[in-house]
Amino acid sequence: MKTVSELGEHRVVDSILAVLRKQAKPAIPFGDDVSAVKLDRGKLLILKTDTMVWDTDVPPGMTARQAGRKALVMNVSDLAAKGVKPLAAVVSLSIPSSTSIDEVLSIIKGLEDGAKEYGLEIIGGDTGEAPTIVLSISMAGIADKGTIILRSGAKVGDIVATTGPFGNTAAALAITLNGLEAPHMLKLKLLRSIYKPKARLREGLVLASLKAATSSIDSSDGLAWSLHELSRMSNVGFKITNVPIAPEAEAFARIHGLNPLNLALYGGEEYELVLTIKPELFDKAAASVRSVGGELIKMGVAISERRVIVDYQGKLHEVEAKGWEHFTSKHLPRN
Amino acid sequence: MKTVSELGEHRVVDSILAVLRKQAKPAIPFGDDVSAVKLDRGKLLILKTDTMVWDTDVPPGMTARQAGRKALVMNVSDLAAKGVKPLAAVVSLSIPSSTSIDEVLSIIKGLEDGAKEYGLEIIGGDTGEAPTIVLSISMAGIADKGTIILRSGAKVGDIVATTGPFGNTAAALAITLNGLEAPHMLKLKLLRSIYKPKARLREGLVLASLKAATSSIDSSDGLAWSLHELSRMSNVGFKITNVPIAPEAEAFARIHGLNPLNLALYGGEEYELVLTIKPELFDKAAASVRSVGGELIKMGVAISERRVIVDYQGKLHEVEAKGWEHFTSKHLPRN
Repeated sequence: MKTVSELGEHRVVDSILAVLRKQAKPAIPFGDDVSAVKLDRGKLLILKTDTMVWDTDVPPGMTARQAGRKALVMNVSDLAAKGVKPLAAVVSLSIPSSTSIDEVLSIIKGLEDGAKEYGLEIIGGDTGEAPTIVLSISMAGIADKGTIILRSGAKVGDIVATTGPFGNTAAALAITLNGLEAPHMLKLKLLRSIYKPKARLREGLVLASLKAATSSIDSSDGLAWSLHELSRMSNVGFKITNVPIAPEAEAFARIHGLNPLNLALYGGEEYELVLTIKPELFDKAAASVRSVGGELIKMGVAISERRVIVDYQGKLHEVEAKGWEHFTSKHLPRN
Repeated sequence: MKTVSELGEHRVVDSILAVLRKQAKPAIPFGDDVSAVKLDRGKLLILKTDTMVWDTDVPPGMTARQAGRKALVMNVSDLAAKGVKPLAAVVSLSIPSSTSIDEVLSIIKGLEDGAKEYGLEIIGGDTGEAPTIVLSISMAGIADKGTIILRSGAKVGDIVATTGPFGNTAAALAITLNGLEAPHMLKLKLLRSIYKPKARLREGLVLASLKAATSSIDSSDGLAWSLHELSRMSNVGFKITNVPIAPEAEAFARIHGLNPLNLALYGGEEYELVLTIKPELFDKAAASVRSVGGELIKMGVAISERRVIVDYQGKLHEVEAKGWEHFTSKHLPRN
C-alpha cells in the first residue's frame, strides 16, 4: 500500500482521474486549468477550485493579507488562461482555534483586494476548524463554448508566446526557503513576485475574444512544466529560441553563480500565460494585449517532434518535464 | 487580540461578513444556505462550498469512503434546502504525504457514490498537502430566481414542517465521541445516521416547483438552531406542537436516562429540511413529497412573537438558540 509521497502528486492525480473518468464526461476534459459543465445555448458553466495551505504553500515573510489575495489570484489566473471572466467566488476557510480574529480578517481583506482587482464578487463561504489554515477558493464563470482556450489545441507552426518574464519567483523562493541573500532593492523586487503576483486576466480575455490563441495554460507549475503540458495535451513539440528571463533573476543568478535559464524554466508560482498563437494573428494579438497594458512575448514555435528544446546562448538544451510536485518536492508551492 | 475560540464561530462569521458586505451585494444575502450571482434571463448561478476536516469533522469509526460521500451529501443538502438541483461539483483534496493511495481512492469513490446518488457530476479539482485530510467541495446549480426558497420568507400562520425524525445523530455522536453504549442493532441504526446521511433533494425540488414553501433551511446545525435561524431571518416565531423524535433516539434516551427532546432539538448533523409551508398548500405539498418517496411532517405554526416554543408532554418549553459551533464546541460537526 503506497503512500502519496512515494507516488508523487502527478501519479496520485492520475489515479484519481482514472476513478472519476468512469463516472463523468465533463465538457472540458479532466486535466485542464478549469472544469466545465454544459448549459443551454452553447454556454458553459466554468468552475475552478484551488486551495492554499499555510503550512506548505505560504512562504516565510508573506502577510496574511498577501496570502488571502494570492489565493484568489491563483484561481483568477486559471480562468484567465482559458479566456474566461470570473463572475464570483465562494471561500472555505479552515483555521486553528488559536488563530487571532485579526489574522482572519486580514485574510478576508486580502481576498477582497484580489476580488476588487479582478472585478468579481465573493458571494459566500464557510468556516471551520483545522490544524493549519486552509483556504479553499472556488470560482465560477460563464463562457461561450467556442471561445474557451484549452491546453490541447496547439498546431505545428503556431507561435509559442507568454505574457511576461520568468525566473524571479525561483529566485525569491531561494531567498525565503533556502536563505540565499540579495541586495536590498533586488530582494524586494524578487520577493514581490511571490508575495504579490498578478493574474493575466485582461490578456487572457482579449486573446480569447480575438480567437488568436490555439492553446493556453497558466505557468503556476513553472515554464518547463507548462510547455510540456501543452506539448502532451496538443501532441506537438516546441522549439524555444527566446526564454524571457527577468533581469532581476539574471542579476540574482550572477551573484550566486546560478544558471539563469534554470531559474526561468524550473521555477513555478509564476502566473504568466503560456500560449500558442496562430502565426497570421500574432501581430494583431500582440497589439491587442498591449492595448490592455500587457505584453505578448514571442518565445518560439510549435514543431511536430514531441520534445521541448531551447536554444540558449547558441546551444540547444532539452527542457525537462519537471516542476513543482506536492508530496515529494522539498519546497513550495501549489498550482 | 482575541482568538477565534474566544469568540466562537458565529461571531467570527459575523466579523467576516461585516468586511465582505462592504464589497459585495450577492443575489442571495449572506448567511443563507447557498450563495448566488445573477445571470441573464432571471436565472441565478448558485454556488455552495463546504469542507470536511478529518481531525474535527470525521467521527471515529467512519470509513474514508463514507466520509467522502458525506462531504458531498452535506453540499447537496444545502442546495436541496433551497430547491436547487446540483449540476456539478469540483473537489479540493489536501492530504498528509503519509496518506496511502488506497485511502485517497476510497475518498474519491465515496464522492462518486454521493454524486451518483444525487445525479451530479464531479468535473474537476485540485490536490495538495496538509497536516490532516481536508476535503473541500464546491457545488453549482442554475435556478430561476422565483423558485429559490430562502430562509427569510416565513409568514405568521405558515405551517412549520420537516422531512424526517430527529435525535439519532445526537445519540450516535454520544456513542462515538462520549463512549455511550447501545444494543447492537440499535447502535447500528444510530451510527448509520452519521455515517450514511441522506440529503432531501427530491423533497426540496418538488417543494420548490410547487412554490409551497415560504422558507427553508437544512438542519445540519440541529433542529433548535435551524428553527431560530428561520425565525431570525423571517422575523417570526414558532410554536412547535410535534417534535418528530426518532424511535431509536427515544430508545437510546430511555437506556441512558437522557431527555429525548434534547437529543432531537440540540443534535446536529441531520440533513433534514426544516421548512415553512403555506397552509392552503400543505396537503398538496405533503402528497407531492410522498410521491417522491419522502414525508412531510407537520411540526407547528409560525407565530408573530419572536420566540421558539415547544409543547412537549403537556408542558411548554423555550427552545434555546444553540447548536454546534466550531472553535468552541467540544465535539463534532461542521454544517
